[in-house]
Amino acid sequence: MKHALAIDLGGTELRVGLVDEEGGILSQCSTKTAANDGPAAVLDQMKNLIDQVLDTRRGIELEGIGVGSPGPLDPFEGVVIRAPTLRHWINVPLRDMVSKMTGLRTVINNDGNVGALGEFHFGAGQGYQDIVYVSVGTGIGGGVIIDGRLLLGRKGLAAEIGHMSISDVGPVCNCGNQGCWEALASGGALALRRERHALGIRDQTKLLEEEARYLGIGITNLLHIFSPECVILGGGVAQIFDQLVGTITETVQKRAMPPFRDVPIVAATLGSNAGLVGAGCLILR
Amino acid sequence: MKHALAIDLGGTELRVGLVDEEGGILSQCSTKTAANDGPAAVLDQMKNLIDQVLDTRRGIELEGIGVGSPGPLDPFEGVVIRAPTLRHWINVPLRDMVSKMTGLRTVINNDGNVGALGEFHFGAGQGYQDIVYVSVGTGIGGGVIIDGRLLLGRKGLAAEIGHMSISDVGPVCNCGNQGCWEALASGGALALRRERHALGIRDQTKLLEEEARYLGIGITNLLHIFSPECVILGGGVAQIFDQLVGTITETVQKRAMPPFRDVPIVAATLGSNAGLVGAGCLILR
Repeated sequence: MKHALAIDLGGTELRVGLVDEEGGILSQCSTKTAANDGPAAVLDQMKNLIDQVLDTRRGIELEGIGVGSPGPLDPFEGVVIRAPTLRHWINVPLRDMVSKMTGLRTVINNDGNVGALGEFHFGAGQGYQDIVYVSVGTGIGGGVIIDGRLLLGRKGLAAEIGHMSISDVGPVCNCGNQGCWEALASGGALALRRERHALGIRDQTKLLEEEARYLGIGITNLLHIFSPECVILGGGVAQIFDQLVGTITETVQKRAMPPFRDVPIVAATLGSNAGLVGAGCLILR
Repeated sequence: MKHALAIDLGGTELRVGLVDEEGGILSQCSTKTAANDGPAAVLDQMKNLIDQVLDTRRGIELEGIGVGSPGPLDPFEGVVIRAPTLRHWINVPLRDMVSKMTGLRTVINNDGNVGALGEFHFGAGQGYQDIVYVSVGTGIGGGVIIDGRLLLGRKGLAAEIGHMSISDVGPVCNCGNQGCWEALASGGALALRRERHALGIRDQTKLLEEEARYLGIGITNLLHIFSPECVILGGGVAQIFDQLVGTITETVQKRAMPPFRDVPIVAATLGSNAGLVGAGCLILR
């Protein structure tokens, strides 16, 4: 059995794990990300967590280290171009920094792609060759597997699906664009609407319906664009998937062209482990 | 030099050509498509045109026959699921019909994919590995090349990019959905707006600006989704590319995230030959 280190770098939490080629997590440690202190501080945190994790399995042979990070991120150059949730992270050569620090072969990719890889190999995407993974948290990210391979595109920047406009006069997004799916359907957008209305229980249902409708509109677009075998919903919103799936499905049935209507829309199954399991895939798959 | 027959089946015109592996068209014939008379009548037309084309080059060795057809279309099964511009074309096993009629190996794909293949191998997409081809005519179709290969997806139905909603309350599309890119930015949509307003020359400029803005919104989405090296605009609208490219570029500069802003947006170069050249690629490439 082959092993690798996996790092799940988020704006809130930093996790390091020791993973195997079958998607197992042998041990893991985490800490609150030093998100305001720049890359060097976060690298120090990584070093500490790696030491802790390896202490549990002395002498284990490692194939390398996979890192999932916020993006946009160029996986070919190994550079985090910008990480909105991490202060001072602009054009950070994260891959070479981690490689130099650990002496291990290092591969990085953005968290959406890493989540897609994890679900593809070990989660809800098993058995398919073409999947669209949508991660709905504070923002909307994602990753797309085509013919069993990750869609990367120029500079590895593909699958910024949260920044697909679905409304030409919609709200302004964090990215500066207008009507982005993220600005309408992310957990952040939902929270904003909730605050704005200060609603009771009955209206709460309405808010969730609106959320699910926006998710359904974007999912319909992705069905038409990629014709996947399966759409997988991950991120925080996956936890309330059961409350959303009715209206999502209804919206897709109404909006998608007939040959796209029978594509399953399912919840991610790896939960909070998706980041570590997927980062491991960068090395072991 | 290898040769193949190529068929470009449109709702208005049916063309048959004899093409070579370098994108050359040795001879071609065309006729007005018998669009209201069902598949058998169109097959008869194909037979006649094929005979005419082959009469010009008796005894030439053929590798097969490539067919571009309106879709949605399943290239794996060889079935035209529905062709809105051709009456009575529902679940037509076009590949097997053509193959039986000619005795030749037959490959079919939808006209958007075929146009993308043509531009990729012999047109504006030469030298790239990742392109998005957008065909703007009566509707909006397209095709996507990823890592040098056509994006197909489940049942080969991917790249229905005209049916990406860019406005949640926009006009109803032919497909029944609301706010589709096609319903806002196609040549058909432009003509509708023109009729509705019965405008003078000055307002004509405004109409084109609106058209270009809608094209720019959809292109920005495709940049974020695919991160192509190049976006190629084909179809009838390519003929007025020079009048549109200013506002398209302005819209993309304003809406796209910084790392996507320098992707070239260019006009297709194969013009009305795209369909034949691309259909030839189905066999020869």
